Amino acid sequence: MFNRGIIKPVTTLEQKETITPVSDFGEFGLIKLLTGTLKTNNGSTLKGVGDDAAVIGYSGDEAILASTDMYVEGVHFDLAYTPLLHLGYKCITASISDIYAMNGNAEQVLVSVALSSRFSVEALQEVYQGMRIACEKYKVDLVGGDTTSSKTGLVINITAIGRAKKDEVTYRNGAKPNDILCVSGDLGGAYVGLQVLEREKQVFLSNPDMQPELHDYSYVLQRQLRPEARKDVVEILAALHIKPTSMIDISDGLSSEILHLCDQSGTGCDLFEEKIPRDDNTYDTARSLNLDFTMCALNGGEDYELLFTISQADYEKIKNHPDFTLIGYMTEKESGANLITTSGNRYPLQAQGWKHF
Amino acid sequence: MFNRGIIKPVTTLEQKETITPVSDFGEFGLIKLLTGTLKTNNGSTLKGVGDDAAVIGYSGDEAILASTDMYVEGVHFDLAYTPLLHLGYKCITASISDIYAMNGNAEQVLVSVALSSRFSVEALQEVYQGMRIACEKYKVDLVGGDTTSSKTGLVINITAIGRAKKDEVTYRNGAKPNDILCVSGDLGGAYVGLQVLEREKQVFLSNPDMQPELHDYSYVLQRQLRPEARKDVVEILAALHIKPTSMIDISDGLSSEILHLCDQSGTGCDLFEEKIPRDDNTYDTARSLNLDFTMCALNGGEDYELLFTISQADYEKIKNHPDFTLIGYMTEKESGANLITTSGNRYPLQAQGWKHF
Repeated sequence: MFNRGIIKPVTTLEQKETITPVSDFGEFGLIKLLTGTLKTNNGSTLKGVGDDAAVIGYSGDEAILASTDMYVEGVHFDLAYTPLLHLGYKCITASISDIYAMNGNAEQVLVSVALSSRFSVEALQEVYQGMRIACEKYKVDLVGGDTTSSKTGLVINITAIGRAKKDEVTYRNGAKPNDILCVSGDLGGAYVGLQVLEREKQVFLSNPDMQPELHDYSYVLQRQLRPEARKDVVEILAALHIKPTSMIDISDGLSSEILHLCDQSGTGCDLFEEKIPRDDNTYDTARSLNLDFTMCALNGGEDYELLFTISQADYEKIKNHPDFTLIGYMTEKESGANLITTSGNRYPLQAQGWKHF
Repeated sequence: MFNRGIIKPVTTLEQKETITPVSDFGEFGLIKLLTGTLKTNNGSTLKGVGDDAAVIGYSGDEAILASTDMYVEGVHFDLAYTPLLHLGYKCITASISDIYAMNGNAEQVLVSVALSSRFSVEALQEVYQGMRIACEKYKVDLVGGDTTSSKTGLVINITAIGRAKKDEVTYRNGAKPNDILCVSGDLGGAYVGLQVLEREKQVFLSNPDMQPELHDYSYVLQRQLRPEARKDVVEILAALHIKPTSMIDISDGLSSEILHLCDQSGTGCDLFEEKIPRDDNTYDTARSLNLDFTMCALNGGEDYELLFTISQADYEKIKNHPDFTLIGYMTEKESGANLITTSGNRYPLQAQGWKHF
């Protein structure tokens, strides 16, 4: 396998017949292509690629949950409007959100940072300070990492490690037809906040003396720049004695996440537009930017709310809970995943979340 | 803490009084600065920052080991002479080496990859194929990851997860004066291989029609481009009923690693130059490049051999073992860490390993 010659001055790339741009696949297609046929060698690997986190189990009734995320300057964040303190905070909350999405508790993180020489020690301390604040708030320990230089820009990788009782772990694949689809908090805010920041950046670039006008936007800006992870949802569900039949966190947009649950559970879904939870500030700001709120919620992403399904038997326990909104129900696979609009029309849900490529 | 104003068009950097270049600290100084005062919140965190891997323990007698490493194009690897297949392989072996250095067994890896649009799907498949080959060989499962775009170049982050019995975990801080310092395999090869590749790259750049002459260098090139991790050492030590008093893997060079053991164990060390294990191909190639072999071994790095100390009581078990070389012994802290040269001189060891910044 390694006999292709040790040295390839221009990499093996140019000797191949086929050159396919990564954009032809998209992130999820690419993951399937790269990891689709992976076998496992260890009995401790209970769940590999394909959920919010991997599940590892030894003897005993506890499982280890592990997830990794990379944040790249110019792709995931723009330092023109992202304070480094917030950046550190967000990298932690966005990463541990994957552990909560498995119905577990995050306890450790490992942090890798690559940075170019334009960053000072003080800048790096600021990033770490944001991480520390998040770790303290969520009771997570920063237990290891790697620090290196990069040729350009800042790259941060966070691995989150947590645990849950093996029989409490919630996967994406357990939803059944008639299960109720629920979501925590409200949606679309992070995306609307990003649009505000992008607009103000353009204003600033065309006239650096202009002061950005941001006081009306504090909620959506906080949703974008300093999102929280829904650790509390895991605790509330436990207190209500509800184990969701499936769960995922909303990082790429409601549409994309619903399609993941349907795809992996082998179900369809009816989502009701009028039920999608919204904050007034998000809604009003979206309107002022000529954005359709529903599109922001469906495709915007980065809200880090938890989307989950529960069986009908648990309906009474949750129906009036202020932290949750019931937004639809799962159906037979043949019905497909659909949005039922406020006007009563029915459209297939499409994954139009944020494209990485 | 977050009231510095939501938007900072040029980051908070320019408002600070002090701007210290990262190069003033170096990697280890930086890690101390950033993580020196970290507290832990969870009883499951048995060991945080400061060893080859973090140690996490729940109930039961097993500990989880976790380590993360980032590999950046142009910093850690040069695609002018690194085949993508080898790159994938090396990222895995270099990462799981940290788990073996804790006297544990690596069982899972999480892989993040950021790549720019100049990489094709086929190129990415090549990297993953190298990872798969390594995973298969070492019986490690690739259980998760993240794939994203980057503005420039390729960045790979690997998190390795393993396990060991809690009382078998070997830290850097357990060495005692009179313990014997041992190392597996031979040293300096990876660094010498790198020098060969750099030389051939220069030849190629000045005359692209020249074919690189590499057939004499297969050993050192393999050490650089496709290093192995010493899983077998952990197994051999267990079979010999030896638990090292301290252990570390050689990623930054023998000097730097010995100083870590001395620093964390509170000891000194005498290292004997004539005992440093060498391969003939490494030695001869170093000479032909006008490099001093001892300097290559002390400061070269990337050999991924295991360096460990054992108590005198274990000497008989290991003294003639072909996989290990006894290269010195630990001393009182006051004696410092010293190299005893072949000619009998005594010099303080200095960490002159590869500088990331």
